[in-house]
Amino acid sequence: MVQTRNATELADLPEGWVLAGDQKSILRRFKFKNFKYAWAFMTHVAMIAEAMDHHPEWFNVYNRVEITLTTHDAGGVTARDIELANKINEIAEA
Amino acid sequence: MVQTRNATELADLPEGWVLAGDQKSILRRFKFKNFKYAWAFMTHVAMIAEAMDHHPEWFNVYNRVEITLTTHDAGGVTARDIELANKINEIAEA
Amino acid sequence: MVQTRNATELADLPEGWVLAGDQKSILRRFKFKNFKYAWAFMTHVAMIAEAMDHHPEWFNVYNRVEITLTTHDAGGVTARDIELANKINEIAEA
Amino acid sequence: MVQTRNATELADLPEGWVLAGDQKSILRRFKFKNFKYAWAFMTHVAMIAEAMDHHPEWFNVYNRVEITLTTHDAGGVTARDIELANKINEIAEA
Repeated sequence: MVQTRNATELADLPEGWVLAGDQKSILRRFKFKNFKYAWAFMTHVAMIAEAMDHHPEWFNVYNRVEITLTTHDAGGVTARDIELANKINEIAEA
Repeated sequence: MVQTRNATELADLPEGWVLAGDQKSILRRFKFKNFKYAWAFMTHVAMIAEAMDHHPEWFNVYNRVEITLTTHDAGGVTARDIELANKINEIAEA
Repeated sequence: MVQTRNATELADLPEGWVLAGDQKSILRRFKFKNFKYAWAFMTHVAMIAEAMDHHPEWFNVYNRVEITLTTHDAGGVTARDIELANKINEIAEA
Repeated sequence: MVQTRNATELADLPEGWVLAGDQKSILRRFKFKNFKYAWAFMTHVAMIAEAMDHHPEWFNVYNRVEITLTTHDAGGVTARDIELANKINEIAEA
C-alpha cells in the first residue's frame, strides 16, 4: 500500500510548493519569460513524468504554469509527489 | 478594433467546441490513448499557437486535455479563436 | 551481456526499417505533411525513448526525419532496438 | 532576392558558430546534461524556427545536438540564419 504523508511531514515541502486546501495535493505556480520558455519547461517535466509514470495535473496560459501533484491511488500526497516536485524544482532553476 | 462574435455566429462553432457559460470563450475536451499521445498533440498545438501568437488556456492530466480559447484584448471570442479551434480540430483528427 | 542479432534474425525487421551498411544499426526515414507534424511525432518518440532509456540517433530537416537505432553497449542491433522500432512504427501509423 | 553573406561578414558569426567547409551553411554543436535537457532545448528551438518559418537541419543523439543553418532559397547563409543562430544562442545560455 502506498502511504500518504501527514501534515507534519508536509510542512517540509520542496521550495515553492504549497499544500492544497483539502491537503490532498501540492501545487506550485511558475512564471516564465514567454510561452516558448514555459513550453520548453513543460516538455522537460513531461519527459520526467512519463519516465516516472507519475503525471501532473497542470494548467498553462502563455507564460504561466500551475502544477498540481497528487497520487490518485493513495488519495493524497505521497513520496512520489515529493520526488516529482523536487525534480521539477531542479529544472526550473536550471 | 477586434470584433467579437455574437451568439448567432457562435452557434456555428467548429465541431466539438462549445461556448462557455459566460459566452466569453469556447472550449473542447480531448481524450487520448495515453499521456504520450496527449503530449504529442499538445506539442503540435503549442507550435501552431506560437506561430499565430495566440495562445490557449489549457489543462492536462494524463490522457485528457481541455482547451479554452478566448481573445483577451477583445474580451470575448473572435475570428482568431475560431481559426485556432479549426486548426486544432484538423490535427486532432489526423 | 546484451546479445546482438545476427543477419538472419534481422531479415525480419519491423516494416520500413533497413539494416545499415555495416550491419550495426537499423534506420528508417519518415516524411510528414510539414515541420509541425514531424515535430509532434519526434516528441512522441522522445518520450518513449526516454522512458526506455534507449535513445535514437536522429536527423531532422523540415518534414523529414531519419532515425538510426543501435545499442552502443553491445556494438550492434539488439532486441531493444527492435522494440523501439516497433513502438515508433506504431505511432507513425496512428 | 535574398542576399547571401560573403566571407568577410561571416567572420563575425554568433558565438560558437562556425562556417561549414563549403561556406554554404553555419553550424554549432551543443552538449547538455542528459537527453531531457537536450530535448527541452530542441523544443524551444523548434518553436522559434516554426514561428520564423525557417527550419534547422539538425542531428541529436542523447545529450548532443548539432544544428546546421542555411537558406536553401538563397543557396547559402543569409541574415535569417544569423538571426536564428542568435536566438538559439540566447536560449542555450538561459
